[in-house]
Amino acid sequence: MFDVIAFDADDTLWHNETLYSITQDKFKQLLSEYRGTDGIDQVLYETEMRNLQHYGYGIKAFTLSMIETAIELTDAQVQGREIREIIDFAREMLNAPVQLLDGAADVIRTLSASHPLMIITKGDLFDQESKIARSGLADYFTHVEIVSHKTEDTYKALLARHNIHPERFLMVGNSLKSDILPVVAVGSQAVYIPYHLTWAHEVVANPDEEHQGRYFELEHIGLLPALVKKLSSDSKP
Amino acid sequence: MFDVIAFDADDTLWHNETLYSITQDKFKQLLSEYRGTDGIDQVLYETEMRNLQHYGYGIKAFTLSMIETAIELTDAQVQGREIREIIDFAREMLNAPVQLLDGAADVIRTLSASHPLMIITKGDLFDQESKIARSGLADYFTHVEIVSHKTEDTYKALLARHNIHPERFLMVGNSLKSDILPVVAVGSQAVYIPYHLTWAHEVVANPDEEHQGRYFELEHIGLLPALVKKLSSDSKP
Repeated sequence: MFDVIAFDADDTLWHNETLYSITQDKFKQLLSEYRGTDGIDQVLYETEMRNLQHYGYGIKAFTLSMIETAIELTDAQVQGREIREIIDFAREMLNAPVQLLDGAADVIRTLSASHPLMIITKGDLFDQESKIARSGLADYFTHVEIVSHKTEDTYKALLARHNIHPERFLMVGNSLKSDILPVVAVGSQAVYIPYHLTWAHEVVANPDEEHQGRYFELEHIGLLPALVKKLSSDSKP
Repeated sequence: MFDVIAFDADDTLWHNETLYSITQDKFKQLLSEYRGTDGIDQVLYETEMRNLQHYGYGIKAFTLSMIETAIELTDAQVQGREIREIIDFAREMLNAPVQLLDGAADVIRTLSASHPLMIITKGDLFDQESKIARSGLADYFTHVEIVSHKTEDTYKALLARHNIHPERFLMVGNSLKSDILPVVAVGSQAVYIPYHLTWAHEVVANPDEEHQGRYFELEHIGLLPALVKKLSSDSKP
């Protein structure tokens, strides 16, 4: 039934948001010498949102936003050695081992035997390539697409580029905003597998009602092969 | 004779290294309050090289390296307001108008009438996409490939992906190391158009003698259409 099954990577195949969350806690700890930790999350998030148009996504962008926030929240009193600590946080994040979600490796191996698989991930090219390489899963994917946004136009362009009919494309991911709603909108199918943390920027306040029932939702990735099997047999005449 | 003509972007189609050079001068000026400017270039370059494996290429990586260098060279005495200035440098670079090289727009328009054109550029995905969009040239290119490295393997993979026979591929660029030597090595043709500045990292000490005579060299991009025409007519029986 599907010519290609595509996967988001961060928080769909491996843990990612937890890494940001741990770093953000260290960052708040670092600033606690100057002030209480109240409101730091909010100012950092606003800084990230303001910088998104300049920097795009990823750890380097996050790091520059942390440095800017530290300067702002300390009235520029933050010390050089503290800025160096923030840069060290970045390096730790960039070199952190890629921790696959439970069951992800088995699912990818299983599905790669029956379908061409694709990764479609948003973010920093260099960092994403490095994580894919370190994940040990690279060889199971026929194509890897690293994009700067995930909008309807992004998916339309990818389907055209790979000559895939929208109805024969399935996308799997943890972000309604990036992986599910735009995919459903172009006429493809999507499987939403929530991760226990969602970056505020990816939260959809009220998923459009018209989309309800137009995508599947699973509790964890281990359930995916059974769903794909069911959809494939349902579609047979 | 060529199925595709591909172009590097930075310093081949538009000015780039000048922007880094101007910023680096401002950076040295900023540190001159603490010390002489001697040796700053060298320490910054070493920091960039050390960070390349973590950050990859691009303005965000350069900015983080400038911040790290400032902390190192001032024994962590650099002030928050000065770090903020470095971040402002980055934002200026990211938003600087894209300045096309003389003749580049005409050449791209001319060649796009006879050949599918491709951009193959290295660097930060978000920043490169933004520059391509702002260049006004995007519509003349059939494909845009933003890659994290430009090695023989990179070009082999791109040729395979686009079903291009190596002999029918021409690459145009300003870096012997990234645009010319690996292209010649995979059996394609290349046109080297030096830019007046070359980032130390891209300098090839002694271009391998065996490559001599295996690529073309032009003084400026305006001469490219005539060369392509000549090569195409030479190849006819």
